[in-house]
Amino acid sequence: MDERAALRQLAATLPHAGDDAAVVDGTAITTDMLHATTDFPAGTTRYTAGWRSVAASLSDLAAVGAQPTAAVAAYADTAFDADELADFVDGAQAVCEAVGAEYVGGDLDSHSEFTVATTAIGDAVEAVDRASATPGDRVVVTGAFGRSAAALRLFEREDFDRANDLFQFSPRIDAGRALADTATAMMDSSDGLARSLHQLAEASDCGFAIDREAVPVADALAAVADDADDRWEAAVHFGEDFELVATVPAARLDDVRAESPTPLTEIGRVVDAEEGITANGEPLADRGYTHG
Amino acid sequence: MDERAALRQLAATLPHAGDDAAVVDGTAITTDMLHATTDFPAGTTRYTAGWRSVAASLSDLAAVGAQPTAAVAAYADTAFDADELADFVDGAQAVCEAVGAEYVGGDLDSHSEFTVATTAIGDAVEAVDRASATPGDRVVVTGAFGRSAAALRLFEREDFDRANDLFQFSPRIDAGRALADTATAMMDSSDGLARSLHQLAEASDCGFAIDREAVPVADALAAVADDADDRWEAAVHFGEDFELVATVPAARLDDVRAESPTPLTEIGRVVDAEEGITANGEPLADRGYTHG
Repeated sequence: MDERAALRQLAATLPHAGDDAAVVDGTAITTDMLHATTDFPAGTTRYTAGWRSVAASLSDLAAVGAQPTAAVAAYADTAFDADELADFVDGAQAVCEAVGAEYVGGDLDSHSEFTVATTAIGDAVEAVDRASATPGDRVVVTGAFGRSAAALRLFEREDFDRANDLFQFSPRIDAGRALADTATAMMDSSDGLARSLHQLAEASDCGFAIDREAVPVADALAAVADDADDRWEAAVHFGEDFELVATVPAARLDDVRAESPTPLTEIGRVVDAEEGITANGEPLADRGYTHG
Repeated sequence: MDERAALRQLAATLPHAGDDAAVVDGTAITTDMLHATTDFPAGTTRYTAGWRSVAASLSDLAAVGAQPTAAVAAYADTAFDADELADFVDGAQAVCEAVGAEYVGGDLDSHSEFTVATTAIGDAVEAVDRASATPGDRVVVTGAFGRSAAALRLFEREDFDRANDLFQFSPRIDAGRALADTATAMMDSSDGLARSLHQLAEASDCGFAIDREAVPVADALAAVADDADDRWEAAVHFGEDFELVATVPAARLDDVRAESPTPLTEIGRVVDAEEGITANGEPLADRGYTHG
């Protein structure tokens, strides 16, 4: 059974397992595990690892429109180095402070591989799910896609400073909160924009017509991509970008864009399920990065 | 740097890192990582792994007197088996239901080793810490010590049914809540009774005079131990038992024992720091199981 099949099985058993975060009595909670082989390329600093792993959970809270209050991490490694541990905590604290949450530590574990499991909690008044996108709604996204794809290429080239900077992304808490009242469906793009659209389409029983030219691509990716096809592929399929992808009724679009401190870019609209998921009229494949 | 030194470093940086759970705005949160090599002996069922790993986090909430509301787990393995995953979820759900919390799923990760990271949250009105034990207070514990030590011996003998039963412990939520108003210090005994007493003594700047005969020993341990010394060693130093260890003002002892649905056993009293930590007048070594 692969990871997607396992996730489908979980979703059938646990009512909240398909969403970015579960909401229990007004508190949103989400957990993520990352580890060296698949998530932290050689050259990733422990500050970046602390920032990024906690930010991944904070992004899940953003995706349900929650305000984070606290985060914890279980930190596992083959040995404990005082500087590495301090750097990890600094990174975790910095990203929590950036969104008004408190990093409160966690657990240590001796393990065969550097592994981090993070959990974030927050207040969710209007929890947004993925199930109510309606034909005619507009599709909006935060930020630009391809930051993490670009970072990986820079890690490969040993351009570690720029790669680490790109890996320290901003969880889109303020945009998530601005969208919480209005969005008919929302998630983060951690599996890639294409997979996110397919998941929203499945949950909402709809299709999407995306305007390829409207999809914002990170400058950092444009700088390292071979050509336009490479850039598009990395931007929409690679994933790991943690931007928000949301659908908004057309009549509310101007208001929500005015309310969101983080700019929202309109990239297309919701269509009937029979029309499928297309970019400039061409089918957009359900292909993404399967998280290790 | 070993795990204890790393934990001391964290405690110096993060104000909550030394306690069983952090409390932020009335919500208690705690996380734990367990993995096959050190925590799940051969023969441990996935049902037991789900129960036990979530229960470890619930026990941390009990130790601060909180009422659990929800738990999540990140489940990592070399491959995903549908039955194993379902059994894990069943065990996690069962222990959550037993304490009135909701198990809401979590994350999946492909990893080199079966690894579980659990987080539990709960409501903490009167969060108990470890710092106010006062000479004259009585020391009380829940349950009996040596269940997990006995379970490990049974796993070694391939008596898997009994070993799995012993591994599915009850988090002491009701006792923790009964003690929340009254206890001057409290923690769980996951590192062993001896280490727990040393940690409470360090936090409260006190000593302990323990009555060796009063320490409750699990029947299962008595049945597999070689002799009285082996039994004592396994009961007080092995750890992994997740009982509560608390100090209570002598005048409040009868009331709190009457309030706690789980029986509380008095095992000794708080003394001045200069008197050290003794059992029947003999020093009780700061020796325990260092969690992997």
